[in-house]
Amino acid sequence: MSDPAIEAQLAPLRKSVKEQGDIVRQLKTDGAGDIDIQRAVAELKHRKKALEDKELALAPKDDFDRIKMEDLLKQKFFYDQSFAIYGGINGLYDFGPMGCAMKANLLQAWRKHFVLEEQMLEVDTAMLTPEPVLKASGHVDRFQDYMVKDLKNGECFRADHLIEATLEKLLEDKKMPDEKKEEIRALLPTIDGMSKEDMGDTLKKYNMKSPVTGNDLTEPLDFNLMFATSIGPTGQIKGFLRPETAQGIFVNFKRLLEFNQGKLPFAAAQIGNSFRNEISPRSGLIRVREFTMAEIEHFCDPASKDHPKFPGLADTDMMLYSACNQMDGKPPEKIKIGDAVKSKLVANETLGYFMARIQMFMVKMGVDASRLRFRQHLSNEMAHYACDCWDAECKTSYGWVECVGCADRSCYDLNQHTKATGVRLSAEKPLPAPISLLCSTIDVTECVAQKGPLGKTFKQNAKPITEHLAGLSAEEINAFEQNLNDKGSSDVVVNGETFSVTKEMVQIKRFQKTIHVEEFVPSVIEPSFGIGRIMYAIFEHNFKVREGDEQRTYLSLPAVIAPYKCSVLPLSSNPDFNSLVQELSSALTGVDISHKVDTSSGSIGRRYARTDQIAIPYGITVDFDSLKEPHTATLRERESMKQIRAPICELPVVVKDLADGRRTWEDVLATYPLFEQQEATK
Amino acid sequence: MSDPAIEAQLAPLRKSVKEQGDIVRQLKTDGAGDIDIQRAVAELKHRKKALEDKELALAPKDDFDRIKMEDLLKQKFFYDQSFAIYGGINGLYDFGPMGCAMKANLLQAWRKHFVLEEQMLEVDTAMLTPEPVLKASGHVDRFQDYMVKDLKNGECFRADHLIEATLEKLLEDKKMPDEKKEEIRALLPTIDGMSKEDMGDTLKKYNMKSPVTGNDLTEPLDFNLMFATSIGPTGQIKGFLRPETAQGIFVNFKRLLEFNQGKLPFAAAQIGNSFRNEISPRSGLIRVREFTMAEIEHFCDPASKDHPKFPGLADTDMMLYSACNQMDGKPPEKIKIGDAVKSKLVANETLGYFMARIQMFMVKMGVDASRLRFRQHLSNEMAHYACDCWDAECKTSYGWVECVGCADRSCYDLNQHTKATGVRLSAEKPLPAPISLLCSTIDVTECVAQKGPLGKTFKQNAKPITEHLAGLSAEEINAFEQNLNDKGSSDVVVNGETFSVTKEMVQIKRFQKTIHVEEFVPSVIEPSFGIGRIMYAIFEHNFKVREGDEQRTYLSLPAVIAPYKCSVLPLSSNPDFNSLVQELSSALTGVDISHKVDTSSGSIGRRYARTDQIAIPYGITVDFDSLKEPHTATLRERESMKQIRAPICELPVVVKDLADGRRTWEDVLATYPLFEQQEATK
Repeated sequence: MSDPAIEAQLAPLRKSVKEQGDIVRQLKTDGAGDIDIQRAVAELKHRKKALEDKELALAPKDDFDRIKMEDLLKQKFFYDQSFAIYGGINGLYDFGPMGCAMKANLLQAWRKHFVLEEQMLEVDTAMLTPEPVLKASGHVDRFQDYMVKDLKNGECFRADHLIEATLEKLLEDKKMPDEKKEEIRALLPTIDGMSKEDMGDTLKKYNMKSPVTGNDLTEPLDFNLMFATSIGPTGQIKGFLRPETAQGIFVNFKRLLEFNQGKLPFAAAQIGNSFRNEISPRSGLIRVREFTMAEIEHFCDPASKDHPKFPGLADTDMMLYSACNQMDGKPPEKIKIGDAVKSKLVANETLGYFMARIQMFMVKMGVDASRLRFRQHLSNEMAHYACDCWDAECKTSYGWVECVGCADRSCYDLNQHTKATGVRLSAEKPLPAPISLLCSTIDVTECVAQKGPLGKTFKQNAKPITEHLAGLSAEEINAFEQNLNDKGSSDVVVNGETFSVTKEMVQIKRFQKTIHVEEFVPSVIEPSFGIGRIMYAIFEHNFKVREGDEQRTYLSLPAVIAPYKCSVLPLSSNPDFNSLVQELSSALTGVDISHKVDTSSGSIGRRYARTDQIAIPYGITVDFDSLKEPHTATLRERESMKQIRAPICELPVVVKDLADGRRTWEDVLATYPLFEQQEATK
Repeated sequence: MSDPAIEAQLAPLRKSVKEQGDIVRQLKTDGAGDIDIQRAVAELKHRKKALEDKELALAPKDDFDRIKMEDLLKQKFFYDQSFAIYGGINGLYDFGPMGCAMKANLLQAWRKHFVLEEQMLEVDTAMLTPEPVLKASGHVDRFQDYMVKDLKNGECFRADHLIEATLEKLLEDKKMPDEKKEEIRALLPTIDGMSKEDMGDTLKKYNMKSPVTGNDLTEPLDFNLMFATSIGPTGQIKGFLRPETAQGIFVNFKRLLEFNQGKLPFAAAQIGNSFRNEISPRSGLIRVREFTMAEIEHFCDPASKDHPKFPGLADTDMMLYSACNQMDGKPPEKIKIGDAVKSKLVANETLGYFMARIQMFMVKMGVDASRLRFRQHLSNEMAHYACDCWDAECKTSYGWVECVGCADRSCYDLNQHTKATGVRLSAEKPLPAPISLLCSTIDVTECVAQKGPLGKTFKQNAKPITEHLAGLSAEEINAFEQNLNDKGSSDVVVNGETFSVTKEMVQIKRFQKTIHVEEFVPSVIEPSFGIGRIMYAIFEHNFKVREGDEQRTYLSLPAVIAPYKCSVLPLSSNPDFNSLVQELSSALTGVDISHKVDTSSGSIGRRYARTDQIAIPYGITVDFDSLKEPHTATLRERESMKQIRAPICELPVVVKDLADGRRTWEDVLATYPLFEQQEATK
């Protein structure tokens, strides 16, 4: 980006972004209306996109060939479309043996890097989620796109995509008068900010039809992106497949806080599948309908978002693309995370700590550091729950792709679930000494179950009813008491069943209490990983072609996520090799090294090429010299294609040490004699 | 079961089972009608259940207290009901930090024991499944229960459960005439075998009402146990959440066979969630609506189901409960698996091999070997796809619970998917030499796409259309050609889109081909693990109470699945201990040992008790002697509560070796001096 010739070409675009950025800022300063700001931001995004497209177009060409890579991934069954023999379903993918092993390794590494290192509380919660939970979280009302339907065949299109495509096509029409074209050009950048009505008007004004059949279209319709189903046989419990794993953590907050002995901060984590019913999924693994996420919810006191381990990472260089730079048309900047937090660019240490840890993880997993940046959300693009958000984006042939979100959700979710259930999702901390000495008093209203009468009537249900009553808020108790006074009884719903509680079963207590603790709703900082997207970025960043041999493509995945760590190849089909191959295979299994024995025919060179294609980092070859005592074999490394010769009994541990990062290939080269024969004789 | 007093009490029940078993056999020999056999089998099952109930009732009482165990599991958040703050949903459970870690460890051990050891091909396929796939597999038509609905409030009941409960209640009615009671007693054992019509008649005859409201009920209704949803925005792609992971493997059979270079046998494996919309889930983790399975599909030549590793396991003692013994009222028998295969009790070596490996795995994970048996399915209780099946059952307080099924599905599934898609899911093997020399010729019909015209019309869709055409069967090609001849074009549906293919785009070829290979549809042997049920059995088999202290309950999970492997406890809150505790914690993380640092107040004895409750097998305590050089600390083992004293720098590796099973506690006791102070001073 520092090439002056390129910068000269980008300059006018940068200027145009900055102009619009300043307009947005001014509107905000002036307290302009929402609609005006939204339109201005939409135009800003449009200009930003033009700048980014130009940047990508001017960047030095790499000779990456996506078709070639996808052929390799399909042929070696890393992943492929689901239900292909039934014609396939868009947006669903199956991971084959290689993709599945890589994914399992990636998740294991994630657990080690985050959960084990930070002693996080990992949970595994239900995917089926009843509607009230997602109503409270905002997903029922806001997790949607607009779509239009072909009136005749029912085919659906995303309204914004269809409008944009239709307008762009109209611009290509040579018979279109110039003033009409001007109007369209002005309209294009506003699509992002259009309301449902705006879209309806635009569809009508330009008389838009289905691009496939030419048929008439419906008005824009709300389309919720969640998969609906009903739980239980009555059809009465409406549910959805969860659109994120986070809610499963929030609804368990009380249990987790108790597990952590009431102390904050703590982080909970979850790995699992989520589901989004995309209207028209595309871009392979990047936009899919079922996907694995790994999410962390770090709960902390909103008044203290410092992190004890932050100083140890403060010097980490990060490529940060601030909202400010985006509005000014400036490129991302390399900044130490410590400085970014000091200058308040990154809101707090905890957010900064996670951003640095995310970067470390991504690079360890094989993401190219020079194609990784953290982009701050503009205030208008933030999800409904977030108050600040930085996305870790990877550069791919699809452009910059969000792979990890790192959001400050503040206390949005816990508050929402408290409102919906009446269960207080809060934590306590000691009041500062002076206040504590003065003491505070609060009014308390309690509904205490009377064990005898309650137990007699409700038997095994008495316990959950007692718990339910104990959890009622003051307002709820007042309403409950009103019922008791008016009708002599009041209904409560517990576990879906209704129970009629009468006066003698409870006692309502009201008193003043002296407190030494302050109750507060924790803030949540959420790093959220899209595992499929990260895998896709890793594939692109590690797809290579051997110099001088176009056909020899391979994947240079780091050993930590490589599906197999090692191959075992007899030089030929000579049966004398069998027992040594068997012995090596057992010894490798003994030290938990996943490996592939390839006894197929084909020259050793061709078999090396095959193991390179599935990213096997190390290969052991048993040859005729191996048969002599002491038994030795060669060990080859994928990147350098160099080989050494070592005693067979030492090789499993050498490979184990290499795979676990306890030893480098350079160490091994220095320890054992180089071997330079086989690859040449292929 | 060898107690003569008990056997005397069981004898009449055994005899009654045998009598009915003989009747069933006779009916089969005589070729009696299906309905008659079904009724006889239902009565047989009823008698078997009476025998089993009596056996369980007469078994020596253990002092297991389920309520106490569930309290511990809830309190330490191993697992608990999902969405409890919203009133909870039956049949959905969340795993908390302890349950989740245990589950992850169990799955990791499963991968090592099965996938890595046997070089299985692990896949990870979509849970959302389009209807045609599950129509072909038989789940749309046959995976169902009957239910009745309360006509007024819509409440649902499983028809068989309701009929049984109502009849049993009628029997308690003292005013009921004796002949009526006799009739009911005769009816009870037939419920299992009742058709929908039988159930409707019974409901009417006894005028059955809702047991909750007394309202009238509907006729019995089919209720499919799958969760339905629709994929994509049009609502046109009907789908279900998969009821098992197996189908995801079958639809990928071709890709997997190719990945395995066309060779059989091979096994594919999958770990993932499945979903069953139980009408009224109960029994905690045992019958739930969303659950994790681990399934293996071992594909092999139906003509050779031997297994090369079987001889190594042939001497394994197994507790086998054959269909024959069940029909004869006899108990299970201890048999060597080699003998069971030799006598054809177990159908083949591969089935026997997996049964022995399953037993090995279960015991390693903490299942009590004396509460584990393999029960063969009676021919009438087999699932629609199975031709032989042995269940690994664990004895729990709910009775014997199926935890792993081990079924021979023969070629049922591959055949079904071939029929539904026209894609041949088969393998090839060389013809035996004599036939090969004679050669075989077959008629071939091929539909070959003409690249030029096809590509010009369909652009990027040309490739999938070409593949589709190449996959058509001879019958399909004939029909296709008929269309071309009649109308000049024929429609094909690829990826849900319809394309009109015209005459000049294809060439139909018919010729004779000489073949040297024989095509066949592989058999499938399927070990299928219910992870939640296995975990539940492990909990029951490992829940213990310290001798002489009723309150000190704990879990004696094997280290391999314990959520944490180690605790680190400073003897008191003295700040001098902090740096050693920190150092130990980092060193443990360094060798990947999950651990818990407990710096909370409370005597060391109380903290040990707390770590015992979450099954931590090893505990390191830093005390005042630790502060002296050379630094030492104590290491305590959970079962024996014995402690040794060792240098701090050696402890992480000692714990690692213990947790990985490379070293036993006896070795450690022999190496380091015993320490006998702390526990006494609590």
